[in-house]
Amino acid sequence: MSTSDGAFAGRVAAAMYERDRVAHALEIAVDEVRFGYARCSMTVTEQMLNGHDLCHGGYLFLLADTAFAYACNARNDVNVALACTISYSAPAKAGDRLVATAEERVKTNRTGTYDVTVSGKSGTVHALFRGTSYQVNAQVIRE
Amino acid sequence: MSTSDGAFAGRVAAAMYERDRVAHALEIAVDEVRFGYARCSMTVTEQMLNGHDLCHGGYLFLLADTAFAYACNARNDVNVALACTISYSAPAKAGDRLVATAEERVKTNRTGTYDVTVSGKSGTVHALFRGTSYQVNAQVIRE
Amino acid sequence: MSTSDGAFAGRVAAAMYERDRVAHALEIAVDEVRFGYARCSMTVTEQMLNGHDLCHGGYLFLLADTAFAYACNARNDVNVALACTISYSAPAKAGDRLVATAEERVKTNRTGTYDVTVSGKSGTVHALFRGTSYQVNAQVIRE
Amino acid sequence: MSTSDGAFAGRVAAAMYERDRVAHALEIAVDEVRFGYARCSMTVTEQMLNGHDLCHGGYLFLLADTAFAYACNARNDVNVALACTISYSAPAKAGDRLVATAEERVKTNRTGTYDVTVSGKSGTVHALFRGTSYQVNAQVIRE
Repeated sequence: MSTSDGAFAGRVAAAMYERDRVAHALEIAVDEVRFGYARCSMTVTEQMLNGHDLCHGGYLFLLADTAFAYACNARNDVNVALACTISYSAPAKAGDRLVATAEERVKTNRTGTYDVTVSGKSGTVHALFRGTSYQVNAQVIRE
Repeated sequence: MSTSDGAFAGRVAAAMYERDRVAHALEIAVDEVRFGYARCSMTVTEQMLNGHDLCHGGYLFLLADTAFAYACNARNDVNVALACTISYSAPAKAGDRLVATAEERVKTNRTGTYDVTVSGKSGTVHALFRGTSYQVNAQVIRE
Repeated sequence: MSTSDGAFAGRVAAAMYERDRVAHALEIAVDEVRFGYARCSMTVTEQMLNGHDLCHGGYLFLLADTAFAYACNARNDVNVALACTISYSAPAKAGDRLVATAEERVKTNRTGTYDVTVSGKSGTVHALFRGTSYQVNAQVIRE
Repeated sequence: MSTSDGAFAGRVAAAMYERDRVAHALEIAVDEVRFGYARCSMTVTEQMLNGHDLCHGGYLFLLADTAFAYACNARNDVNVALACTISYSAPAKAGDRLVATAEERVKTNRTGTYDVTVSGKSGTVHALFRGTSYQVNAQVIRE
């Protein structure tokens, strides 16, 4: 185990990413992971558009949920999503590069609360996500 | 315009579906639409799996959100999602056929609340979704 | 222990109610309790009004939260609220008798999801509440 | 109208507070109000305790909701709560002085999202609240 949180969290994230078919299929990049923190990014493609030619809210959710997962598993304890909320504030379009930044707000023994902001290039906030996690008795990688 | 709610709602849904690239890309079927009600279904594919070989929560959300959209637009007034919540209760696996049933709980002039249940074949509840909609000054199809 | 669910749930609820200073202070009645179900009622008083002469949303929440607590503890296992959401649909006024009906939607080993509807006399829905519970290792009454 | 945001927001808040029977009944102090921001505080009394001798979650919600209301009305446009979520992280006890800090995260023409943190003396986070507001055609005070 690394003496640096970032390095250890990075090894955990790398193991998660290797098995993460959704991140690969949607070309979601995991840009930075620390204990209780993750930043992921994704480009809106044609296949993510709804009938108004805007990014389907489900893909904003999916990107936020991915950042949430990397943030709450970064200490190597497996945490699963129990409940999530999302508020939409501005639509995203094809070609937009979206960045989801997940930050731990509270972590108790078993549960945690994480805030994720989904922003665009110019800092536009597209969505605010909040996730409640629940810790199970498992680890991401063998220490 | 049809004298039957179901028939008119069906025409609105057909117009939405034609432009809905997400539904096509994920092969989401729109099985039934009435005023304030929609039922959609989708099969979990390999590309929807996370690192635990379970359906990524984002795809349960995306299916529920799709049913929500068809339900809250069925009267032809355009309603957009303002905020949504989802609670996960049981994981879904590759090959599972998921059904999302959206029902209007409350509708006022401008806003509405819809409950969506995502269930599996045997009636297992995978997720409970609740959406808050906001009505804008536009229509889905020209009457 | 009673052979009837209702009678046992009733004994659990009676023990909870005896210690429940909030229910006494606000004169909340616990009208019916079964496993995973509770119905509570309260009259809106002058002290619950906001600056618009309408019932403060916090009191609609408080009534719903109380019904949620009685429903998720009715089996005698202590369950605490982890996260809750509320959507407001119609304001309530002084003198209104409000009824909160809590129903279990999903219950797993440790967590549960409950829907609570807050209605008025004529069936008006004032608020829709959804609670996520977490079960701790304790019991309400000694069996 | 004042040239300073804080002074104008303060006049709006003073007008709201004068009519706010709940704030008076629960002795909630409105400590600071600016455009999109409010800080309120309250002491947990015996009447706010549940059967476990802890502050009923409904009162944590009520305090947070009050800060939310002062924050989203501070520009003098009336905004009402549409939907709110709360996550509980640590219980509060009788005598605790609780501080709710509401901050605007996003504001569009008609809707807004506000985050409220409910903290104790030592910085303990008791609850995280998120509110979605909806702007109606009315003003708090006559300009």
